[in-house]
Amino acid sequence: MDIVLVGAGNVATHMGPRLVNCGHRVTAVYSRTIGAASALAVRVGAHATDSVENLPASADVCISMLTDSALPEMAGRIVSHFNGNTVFLHTAGSIPMDIWSSSGAEKCGVLYPMVSFSKTGQVDWNQVPLFVEASDPQTLQMVKQLANQISGDVTELDSEGRKSLHLAAVFANNFSNRMYAISQMLLREHGVPFRVMLPLIQAAVGKLELMDPDKAQTGPAARGDRKVVSEHMEMLEGHKPWQELYRLISIDINNSLK
Amino acid sequence: MDIVLVGAGNVATHMGPRLVNCGHRVTAVYSRTIGAASALAVRVGAHATDSVENLPASADVCISMLTDSALPEMAGRIVSHFNGNTVFLHTAGSIPMDIWSSSGAEKCGVLYPMVSFSKTGQVDWNQVPLFVEASDPQTLQMVKQLANQISGDVTELDSEGRKSLHLAAVFANNFSNRMYAISQMLLREHGVPFRVMLPLIQAAVGKLELMDPDKAQTGPAARGDRKVVSEHMEMLEGHKPWQELYRLISIDINNSLK
Repeated sequence: MDIVLVGAGNVATHMGPRLVNCGHRVTAVYSRTIGAASALAVRVGAHATDSVENLPASADVCISMLTDSALPEMAGRIVSHFNGNTVFLHTAGSIPMDIWSSSGAEKCGVLYPMVSFSKTGQVDWNQVPLFVEASDPQTLQMVKQLANQISGDVTELDSEGRKSLHLAAVFANNFSNRMYAISQMLLREHGVPFRVMLPLIQAAVGKLELMDPDKAQTGPAARGDRKVVSEHMEMLEGHKPWQELYRLISIDINNSLK
Repeated sequence: MDIVLVGAGNVATHMGPRLVNCGHRVTAVYSRTIGAASALAVRVGAHATDSVENLPASADVCISMLTDSALPEMAGRIVSHFNGNTVFLHTAGSIPMDIWSSSGAEKCGVLYPMVSFSKTGQVDWNQVPLFVEASDPQTLQMVKQLANQISGDVTELDSEGRKSLHLAAVFANNFSNRMYAISQMLLREHGVPFRVMLPLIQAAVGKLELMDPDKAQTGPAARGDRKVVSEHMEMLEGHKPWQELYRLISIDINNSLK
């Protein structure tokens, strides 16, 4: 397929070359800054531009890899530039698919890769969970086919489900990191570096490959050890916000096992 | 050194052979059940018994590898059995060192390995954080020397610090797992399996080798994105306990970055 890429940030830098490896032709790359557009265009053998109006007016697929905050302002200009049967896709996790239809697109969809990209790091595309949806069955078939070329882990999910995915990722990623950070600060009070926790954490995360986390819960709250729980609560007297978190998470763990 | 082991559970099963590999002689293994004592005794070339009174009455070191709940009832009987200059150590994270002195021991200490053992899994002892303390400088020197033979990661830490270590591990291990479990249950409502989160989680945990968690915090709360935070709060209307956790952890993250 002939594909136009809108955006040349982290997602595009990783997914653009992957599309070419899958046998597609990237005809043009747009970025707000011509330098970024050119850098990616060279890698995928495409034409670079910093003006939407200079993109080719036809393509099988136009994929916006703009960020969640940049896409809404641009969607209208993108859609109105193309004529014919172009399918509009985007990769923005928190943006509903209907950003396209409300901008006048007929056929559209979403191709959301759930991964933290960095410009330098390598990505094992076969392992990247891709979430797809589309405006109609025919487009869905095309999007699924494209997604299955890119990754070995493709799931169909509507915009509502994608929102929940983001919420779930906040718990799994951002909030677990805050638990690590609280741990780090408690250790620091005794001059102990956080690295001593790494073997335990790595073992726990390794276990998630074999066992879902609701089955893997351990600790004083899980075994109903009220003595240790109340000792810990007392030790947190000087850290009221963490004491309240300790209390509520322990209750939540305990209730989940009833 | 001649070492007597009290206990033949997970810790002893892993640490007993390590002591022998370090050039020490395990003379006897006690366990409440003779089968467990024998199984370990065979591996370390020692005598097995299910009665403390049948242990040899002298040893350079007697190490209790009993669990945190079993040690307190046994400490008195163990100490009174030995005559002479035996040093008493234990491996129980939440038990203070003075369990030994209050049981009549003169020289004592703690050798706490912070790791989740299982009877079958392998342990890379060089990587296991070991926390030590002792009753006096001479004993401390001996305990440190022993600890440095066992592991490449030895830290001196008093009983108070060891309690904080346990509290810190509850946050890093048990509470982060609860964040994963909440994520899993939110995904399940949309039929999405938890494994889709694994690449993100593994990347985040991999990053901890390079960067402390307080520096690695990302997400809507960290970037002060009130719109997304309030959308997420709304989505959690049907899960009041998780909504409250979302609110408090987001506040805690936000305050930490001020």
